[in-house]
Amino acid sequence: MNTDTKFYRLAIIGVGLIGGSLARALRLADACTDVIGYGRNVAHLKKAVSLGVIDDFKTDVAAAVKDADMVVVSVPLGAMSTVFKQMLPALSRDATITDVGSAKASVMNDARKHLGERMFSFVPGHPIAGTEKSGVEASTADLFKNRCVILTPLEETGSIALQRVRAMWELTGAEVVEMEPHHHDEVLAATSHLPHILAYSLVDTLARSAQGEEIFRFAAGGFRDFTRIASSDPVMWRDICLANRDAILGILGKYTNDLEQLAKAIKSGDGDFILKSFSQAKQQRDRILVKIPPTST
Amino acid sequence: MNTDTKFYRLAIIGVGLIGGSLARALRLADACTDVIGYGRNVAHLKKAVSLGVIDDFKTDVAAAVKDADMVVVSVPLGAMSTVFKQMLPALSRDATITDVGSAKASVMNDARKHLGERMFSFVPGHPIAGTEKSGVEASTADLFKNRCVILTPLEETGSIALQRVRAMWELTGAEVVEMEPHHHDEVLAATSHLPHILAYSLVDTLARSAQGEEIFRFAAGGFRDFTRIASSDPVMWRDICLANRDAILGILGKYTNDLEQLAKAIKSGDGDFILKSFSQAKQQRDRILVKIPPTST
Repeated sequence: MNTDTKFYRLAIIGVGLIGGSLARALRLADACTDVIGYGRNVAHLKKAVSLGVIDDFKTDVAAAVKDADMVVVSVPLGAMSTVFKQMLPALSRDATITDVGSAKASVMNDARKHLGERMFSFVPGHPIAGTEKSGVEASTADLFKNRCVILTPLEETGSIALQRVRAMWELTGAEVVEMEPHHHDEVLAATSHLPHILAYSLVDTLARSAQGEEIFRFAAGGFRDFTRIASSDPVMWRDICLANRDAILGILGKYTNDLEQLAKAIKSGDGDFILKSFSQAKQQRDRILVKIPPTST
Repeated sequence: MNTDTKFYRLAIIGVGLIGGSLARALRLADACTDVIGYGRNVAHLKKAVSLGVIDDFKTDVAAAVKDADMVVVSVPLGAMSTVFKQMLPALSRDATITDVGSAKASVMNDARKHLGERMFSFVPGHPIAGTEKSGVEASTADLFKNRCVILTPLEETGSIALQRVRAMWELTGAEVVEMEPHHHDEVLAATSHLPHILAYSLVDTLARSAQGEEIFRFAAGGFRDFTRIASSDPVMWRDICLANRDAILGILGKYTNDLEQLAKAIKSGDGDFILKSFSQAKQQRDRILVKIPPTST
């Protein structure tokens, strides 16, 4: 093993599902002896200690990153900016910084604003893994196994930092790919952000209808699976909508246009149009199904 | 057991997932000794015989229903009318007829048009069960266990017929409820038909985009579950869209209005609006989750 990939003090800034799972995976891989967690809720942090996810915690970002070799920022996108600002003065000279945010252009902007001359140590990242559950209680050491982690290195990103972050994710069993930040945001808007918005919106629409109670009584497994992601953390997803608004509005616009065409076909009884659209979708979905891992968001 | 609930010759008109599963469940319950299947594809019918789902088959509706005590019509909605028309002259005096269509007002109209004086023997029904898989190969004896079956008896429906169909479904382990046909159609448009349309439409939109291949490469479990129902039978779902168009267009209109509000909030950066909508949805979804059975559509 490349000794560069061994870091000794890991700081997890935001000990939730993702941060907690990464800590567990890296402990299991013997990649760190010391994990410090940062958070605002002391009860959650104590829980994380009692679960063996972190060794100790701080409620101050600067204190948490002090002496850390690897700093992983896993807070909602709306909190990134403040966290970067608070950590800069306390970062050790050798610290590599990465994040796990679901949109990358906004993180890039936040980092450029606040990490200053330390941008060479910063590697934006996004593990394509998770579940609709949130919080450290849901964290598992194998969450990233055989999952994809997208890194979006910037012009400023140093090659050593990139190599260290890549090696870290590989220790969790993930496959690491690199992508341009705006391209990442477009791809994720389509496969992840839009479906979440559609699912949240459907449940909300039905819940607010006069027959809400009865409607849900007759919901079956199709509805259950379609709306699973509507049980995700609302704050995290609000922040994603705001951080990735351009890409989301772009694909949402295309989608609603297509949906309108389908509605017109239903209205006019154009069975051929409907059948063609459904058949194409089924064919694609059956084709790609084998490639999608079963239990993550 | 009420001896009325024991029927001796079952005719399954359309031996697919639902018809096949019903035949399996009733055989297991010893409710019939003789199951005749009707279909147009001889290879499928032979497969159904070899799987032990039916004893024999006919490719002529009239021949299949001759001497049957219980006739279950489980063809796509667009084929109902022809099937009713073809069976009428051959129905035995004691035959009870039911169907499993996902929309009930259209079946009601088709039946009234073609079943004439035998309407007293007809009980419209809809088992809220299924999977995205189709065909007799996917059929199982426990598909309806602890699932809900909605019967929508009409003014013409005789009480003996209703009792027989109710008893038949109870033998499969299902819970039977009664509902007015148009009301059924509104409830199912919301919980089942709309989600299917949204899922088909999303996969189709993404597949036709320039980055389709790459987009699907980064799809994870959330996308997988959201789109599971887009692997359903396109002919069946085209027919549902056409048969239940008014109820579907009604709820689709409400949904797209709400989605437009959400898009506006994303565009204007109204985080409070987004958070409120997502939080309400999560709360409702978590609340109803415990009541939804896990593996059926």
